[in-house]
Amino acid sequence: MTAFPEIERIPFEGPQSKNPLAFRYYDPAEKVEGKSMRDHLRFSVVYWHTFRGQGADPFGPGTAARPWDDGSNSLENAQKRVRVAFEFIDKLGAPFYAFHDRDVAPEGESLAESNKNLDDVVKVLKEEQQRTGIQLLWGTANLFSNPRYMHGAATSPNSEAFAYAAAQVKKALEVTLELGGAGYTFWGGREGYQNLWNTDMRRELDNLARFLHIAVDYAKEIGFTGQFYIEPKPKEPTKHQYDSDAAACLNFLRQYDLLDHLKLNLETNHATLAGHTMQHEMDLAGAAGALGSIDANTGDMLLGWDTDQFPTDIYLTTQCMHTLLKYGGLKTGGVNFDAKVRRESFEPIDLFYAHIGGMDAFARGLKIAAAIRADGRLEGLLKDRYASWDSSLGAEIEAGKHSFASLEKIMLERGEVTPNRSGRQEMIENLINTYM
Amino acid sequence: MTAFPEIERIPFEGPQSKNPLAFRYYDPAEKVEGKSMRDHLRFSVVYWHTFRGQGADPFGPGTAARPWDDGSNSLENAQKRVRVAFEFIDKLGAPFYAFHDRDVAPEGESLAESNKNLDDVVKVLKEEQQRTGIQLLWGTANLFSNPRYMHGAATSPNSEAFAYAAAQVKKALEVTLELGGAGYTFWGGREGYQNLWNTDMRRELDNLARFLHIAVDYAKEIGFTGQFYIEPKPKEPTKHQYDSDAAACLNFLRQYDLLDHLKLNLETNHATLAGHTMQHEMDLAGAAGALGSIDANTGDMLLGWDTDQFPTDIYLTTQCMHTLLKYGGLKTGGVNFDAKVRRESFEPIDLFYAHIGGMDAFARGLKIAAAIRADGRLEGLLKDRYASWDSSLGAEIEAGKHSFASLEKIMLERGEVTPNRSGRQEMIENLINTYM
Amino acid sequence: MTAFPEIERIPFEGPQSKNPLAFRYYDPAEKVEGKSMRDHLRFSVVYWHTFRGQGADPFGPGTAARPWDDGSNSLENAQKRVRVAFEFIDKLGAPFYAFHDRDVAPEGESLAESNKNLDDVVKVLKEEQQRTGIQLLWGTANLFSNPRYMHGAATSPNSEAFAYAAAQVKKALEVTLELGGAGYTFWGGREGYQNLWNTDMRRELDNLARFLHIAVDYAKEIGFTGQFYIEPKPKEPTKHQYDSDAAACLNFLRQYDLLDHLKLNLETNHATLAGHTMQHEMDLAGAAGALGSIDANTGDMLLGWDTDQFPTDIYLTTQCMHTLLKYGGLKTGGVNFDAKVRRESFEPIDLFYAHIGGMDAFARGLKIAAAIRADGRLEGLLKDRYASWDSSLGAEIEAGKHSFASLEKIMLERGEVTPNRSGRQEMIENLINTYM
Amino acid sequence: MTAFPEIERIPFEGPQSKNPLAFRYYDPAEKVEGKSMRDHLRFSVVYWHTFRGQGADPFGPGTAARPWDDGSNSLENAQKRVRVAFEFIDKLGAPFYAFHDRDVAPEGESLAESNKNLDDVVKVLKEEQQRTGIQLLWGTANLFSNPRYMHGAATSPNSEAFAYAAAQVKKALEVTLELGGAGYTFWGGREGYQNLWNTDMRRELDNLARFLHIAVDYAKEIGFTGQFYIEPKPKEPTKHQYDSDAAACLNFLRQYDLLDHLKLNLETNHATLAGHTMQHEMDLAGAAGALGSIDANTGDMLLGWDTDQFPTDIYLTTQCMHTLLKYGGLKTGGVNFDAKVRRESFEPIDLFYAHIGGMDAFARGLKIAAAIRADGRLEGLLKDRYASWDSSLGAEIEAGKHSFASLEKIMLERGEVTPNRSGRQEMIENLINTYM
Ligand SMILES: [Co+2]
Ligand SMILES: [Co+2]
Ligand SMILES: [Co+2]
Ligand SMILES: [Co+2]
Ligand SMILES: [Co+2]
Ligand SMILES: [Co+2]
Ligand SMILES: [Co+2]
Ligand SMILES: [Co+2]
Repeated sequence: MTAFPEIERIPFEGPQSKNPLAFRYYDPAEKVEGKSMRDHLRFSVVYWHTFRGQGADPFGPGTAARPWDDGSNSLENAQKRVRVAFEFIDKLGAPFYAFHDRDVAPEGESLAESNKNLDDVVKVLKEEQQRTGIQLLWGTANLFSNPRYMHGAATSPNSEAFAYAAAQVKKALEVTLELGGAGYTFWGGREGYQNLWNTDMRRELDNLARFLHIAVDYAKEIGFTGQFYIEPKPKEPTKHQYDSDAAACLNFLRQYDLLDHLKLNLETNHATLAGHTMQHEMDLAGAAGALGSIDANTGDMLLGWDTDQFPTDIYLTTQCMHTLLKYGGLKTGGVNFDAKVRRESFEPIDLFYAHIGGMDAFARGLKIAAAIRADGRLEGLLKDRYASWDSSLGAEIEAGKHSFASLEKIMLERGEVTPNRSGRQEMIENLINTYM
Repeated sequence: MTAFPEIERIPFEGPQSKNPLAFRYYDPAEKVEGKSMRDHLRFSVVYWHTFRGQGADPFGPGTAARPWDDGSNSLENAQKRVRVAFEFIDKLGAPFYAFHDRDVAPEGESLAESNKNLDDVVKVLKEEQQRTGIQLLWGTANLFSNPRYMHGAATSPNSEAFAYAAAQVKKALEVTLELGGAGYTFWGGREGYQNLWNTDMRRELDNLARFLHIAVDYAKEIGFTGQFYIEPKPKEPTKHQYDSDAAACLNFLRQYDLLDHLKLNLETNHATLAGHTMQHEMDLAGAAGALGSIDANTGDMLLGWDTDQFPTDIYLTTQCMHTLLKYGGLKTGGVNFDAKVRRESFEPIDLFYAHIGGMDAFARGLKIAAAIRADGRLEGLLKDRYASWDSSLGAEIEAGKHSFASLEKIMLERGEVTPNRSGRQEMIENLINTYM
Repeated sequence: MTAFPEIERIPFEGPQSKNPLAFRYYDPAEKVEGKSMRDHLRFSVVYWHTFRGQGADPFGPGTAARPWDDGSNSLENAQKRVRVAFEFIDKLGAPFYAFHDRDVAPEGESLAESNKNLDDVVKVLKEEQQRTGIQLLWGTANLFSNPRYMHGAATSPNSEAFAYAAAQVKKALEVTLELGGAGYTFWGGREGYQNLWNTDMRRELDNLARFLHIAVDYAKEIGFTGQFYIEPKPKEPTKHQYDSDAAACLNFLRQYDLLDHLKLNLETNHATLAGHTMQHEMDLAGAAGALGSIDANTGDMLLGWDTDQFPTDIYLTTQCMHTLLKYGGLKTGGVNFDAKVRRESFEPIDLFYAHIGGMDAFARGLKIAAAIRADGRLEGLLKDRYASWDSSLGAEIEAGKHSFASLEKIMLERGEVTPNRSGRQEMIENLINTYM
Repeated sequence: MTAFPEIERIPFEGPQSKNPLAFRYYDPAEKVEGKSMRDHLRFSVVYWHTFRGQGADPFGPGTAARPWDDGSNSLENAQKRVRVAFEFIDKLGAPFYAFHDRDVAPEGESLAESNKNLDDVVKVLKEEQQRTGIQLLWGTANLFSNPRYMHGAATSPNSEAFAYAAAQVKKALEVTLELGGAGYTFWGGREGYQNLWNTDMRRELDNLARFLHIAVDYAKEIGFTGQFYIEPKPKEPTKHQYDSDAAACLNFLRQYDLLDHLKLNLETNHATLAGHTMQHEMDLAGAAGALGSIDANTGDMLLGWDTDQFPTDIYLTTQCMHTLLKYGGLKTGGVNFDAKVRRESFEPIDLFYAHIGGMDAFARGLKIAAAIRADGRLEGLLKDRYASWDSSLGAEIEAGKHSFASLEKIMLERGEVTPNRSGRQEMIENLINTYM
């Protein structure tokens, strides 16, 4: 049985190819800075959008044609879907995938039944992982869809919602361990508020931190050594999510002594909804040693919600890959396509087009970023720009040798600063264009 | 000599007054929750907008009619302006003011001359403080206007800009101490970037932290015991300021071990430019014990720049005052009108209208907030909402008695959570309206 | 049978009431400017949010507890729901309601069956209208939910989608006529695009205009003399809707010679998503003689999607009512609550709280607006402000007596303009506050 | 005398060039679709940003180093600046320029003196035009900087501001005619409002239309046959400008019977501030036959003010040029760089970098757009997509042969629409990438 009989393994055909079902840039074996593109990019397909997304939006139901899916909530349908998913990921050639517990297995009448369903599907996931070699990038638990989580999970005013979420994450961690997952992600879908008048923010934050500490403890207990991630998003579905951006997450992790245990999983569309570029968020996380993984997508800059579009802008992918290379590249993380086809792109083949486009855009961004680094002109400009910090006064200041008094003395003598130099933004933007 | 001959001390006349030059709500001596309105609100007038703002915008020069100002950069003009400022603040009845070094005294040809100019004006400020009893809420240094700071001050690629800024803050601290200032504020106008391609974010953040540590050291050295503040703003003039919001500031302060030394000075318009309500920023700071002072203004929610309008919305002022009361009220900080009259409101009398409106709106917000608290219905709703955390399971979790295993056990038994209760947002919004 | 046994007809109890299930301002019989509040406000309840909304969002299914609804798509359930709706509207005391065809009756297997279902429900609507005296403010057809409309209805690249939409609107017009509806509204949910590369904008606009002309023709044919409305919204669900704001709608209506046939139905949240205040949209429509009806709700200014919240801000409702009074008040239109309770406000009683709050906020806004007009200070300021246009040079210009040559001659003589006067924005904002 | 001794005429060196002072794509003589790039692109340099901009922002004064400019307001300085401007434009190789009256000549003590100053500078402009062959793309008058226009010009409550503006535009039109300008542009800087409470929108709009009619009359009188343009911008400096976007301008022009006389001058940054892409605005204007000229720049999508950056994004320039080609290319209009170097790019050489980058980005966009058209795949997809409108039912509808009754009859028979086809957004985005 095959769900995509007309599709073979997507080949690499090079930049001249006009085949929309081939890669023009992503050649997994090709070496860039001494490492294969496969290992640089660690592409990952997400189960939720790609295998569960139907294209529903607030103004209409799903449109997706998924002939392999009978639309039921049965275990059989769930298991069959796993086979299709792995056929897809395998033909695409992505080495990783990611999922929430409730994406892969139906929620049962009770927690016990839900756990059993999950176990039954995990068996198939494991089989398919072994058959194809595809690996689990990270697991996670859906703590936002079920109405029990309407007011949040770890931050709910209902303490049993906290307890239920704990049980659910426990199971998800076990399953992630079972499947050899390289990480585990917390995205706090409804961990925030709709209205401050009815919210005790301090208590909710305390509970959120408590929850994460218990999770860290449990991972240790069961020997899960994968990387924990926290994924920022400023809003939607809540009016305000506590983990609103990289800085808010880092502040929270520092405040509650969790920074040793979690890194950031950054998403482009969440960055821009928070008023930052993805490059900013990645640079900030990298500078803090907390750049873990990326959810590779893009938003529409004129829309105010999370459109989770596939990334095709090569300026964006170049910025992402340049920043990753700067901070040493991906370790446990990946380039995870937390992205969905448009509601109007409802045919199965659109799933291939979408992922191929995203992968090629990132492969191209990687090559451009490496070319920029190899060429050295940009890095040279940067080195020059900060040169005053590399010797004499600048170096002394950085070495901690100065106080306000000593600096005042120097500047009273000099009277004015050495003239500034142009920031050269336009020239640098042109320079970047020469690599495109 | 008087600059405002037609204006007497602004009287309190009560809500029925139709006099636009009287207070309808702000009665400084009136007690609210056992404290005078004067002590609750600690109103402060800013020197920059009110005495130096001319109404220039990127599309045209200033319009302001300020008959007392000869438009020159002379010391005499600067000193005369101080007398006018104190006449204004005194007639208005605000107990505090705030200034940047370069607001009050002209920048000279050299640092030494600038310092001398500052000293000469500070003498007059001191005289006027003594004459009127008006106090300095906080001092600060302008580290963003002069072209030497075009690339930042503490974060400049030019190490001498750092040194010059150090000298300038040293002097500003001394002057603040001399004038008995209750605090000192850092707002990092150009401490950020215009473009990430030409920026070394990590190095710049390190330097910013270094600068603040040196400042803290110097304060200790000279015996300045006022409160340090850092003021978040996400952007403008830079594309991205490092201190973008409360969370970003707190993260930075924690990362660099500065949290004991600085509190936040939060501004409404900066909050909304960063995508947060002022209520959010104040609550977040309050929960972290870092709510220091507020720059009371408002933005236009449909405009993307800092309009610094005078606050007149009583929903906003109620939220501010309710949050302040929740966290124990202002200590060293104040309600500082970092606000400017519109370019079209160019007459001196508009300065009175603007401040009276802002003060009355805050006084009214204080009374509404106190009424909400006295009434107790809102607090009661909140207490009920979190009741499940106050006993049994919730209390045990908060007491640290649970693990994932123990929680799973409980929830496997219970199967599902106790039903949630409505968040009652609409009812609460109606309830708030009953106090308006 | 009653769905709300614990609720009586919502009484008016006056501003001092602490009863959350009473009106504090809305007294239908009270006269304002010589007309009853009932006739000024013409409140209307929407069927879609209030009786079909379940609280689903992109991150989770519905939460609403609606004990009277069996959740099925049966005709019986639909008919029973009508009884509940009228009980609700009647107890609330709103004189109008509005609905889409697919809100009230289930879509069948074929167009014929859908039409039959609609007829079967319309019978019950008619009975209930007669029983209660509640009237239909406007009808409309849902041309955006069914996947057949994924690419638009009148603007679909699929010409049969146009034809199907035509058939659906034909029926909806007939039904609106049958129920004595005072109007009919077009909201072009997916009449726009997701991407310009695959879109022929000019052809789509031509088809949209063609569709409206055919509708106007058909209304004439069947004797429907109600008012047609077009409702602007800039985006969502599409990336860009053609009817993006009041100006875009007016431009379209003028271009295609439809301005005599349609007025605008303006919605607050759509105004702000388009970057305008509701006051702006209403003033612009009023100035063009096209202010038809309003969808009374509010958005969250920090969120980028249509939250359709109930309006409670009295500044907003004052602005709306002041503008309506300025342009002569509502004629065929109403204050239609196109608003929904939050997903967390899932209990039936929240529907009452929400509508009561909205109605009271508008009643209060009406009274404040009337007080502003009665007092005359604001209008006096405005009259003064434009006085230079009421005589001599200004009056001559407005009378068409001047050319560039004659004006140049005058200004060469005068050399400079008579000094401007302050715009007094702050004083006016304070003045508005005196009525709050 | 030369202001740029180190710069020769900027050469075309081809894509491989690493010379930052050479064109890599813009080869003026190269033919694209049978027309030279020079004639396709009609590049224009703006006098205001490039020769008058100093880099001031609301937080600091100018930084620009312009050694040829003595900083004075003298006529000599103004005339000398013209020589420098033409040296720059000539070395750059742009065939056009544009200016406001007050950019080129100092405002005098009286209108008469201002006019005389303008005449004295226009003589030099004319000499330099003849010397270099550079032409005037369009002229305009600055009706927003001088405080007399604080409340607007044609829409001022001060009727003498209207009269003064009339005199100023009269002169600007005469000068534009004298210099052989191909057009004249109206940008209504302060033609809007800061606050609706103090504004009579209808009267102001009437006056704005009156002003434009008088201008059209005067142009006819003096024989100016150039194209009039109106330039939309939603806000800044005002809270809301009347000409907020393309649709608002078209609506206004239609309402006041001005559509035959003015086309649109569209600016990218204004489009995005209004919530539209530039591609949208151009397509909408093109579809209305009103696409006149473009102000080629870009904004920062995360900033809420008009940054007027030089355009370097090749996706943007491709969209612009593709839309222009679709509507027949530029006629009287041009690709006018209404763009400014960053405050930190303060050296003269940055002016060259900036313009070279913008010109190259547009030349590249032109070549990509032409390649897309030559290839035909995109157009083929579009033709297929709308095929149902080209025959049978669709063609009949477009031919006006159908009514609601006839369409209902057809759809009752067919029961449901022919299945939709995928919108293929992702595939098309990938396709566009193959041309980059
Ligand atoms: Co994500
Ligand atoms: Co997302
Ligand atoms: Co401030
Ligand atoms: Co501010
Ligand atoms: Co609506
Ligand atoms: Co809406
Ligand atoms: Co422009
Ligand atoms: Co602009």
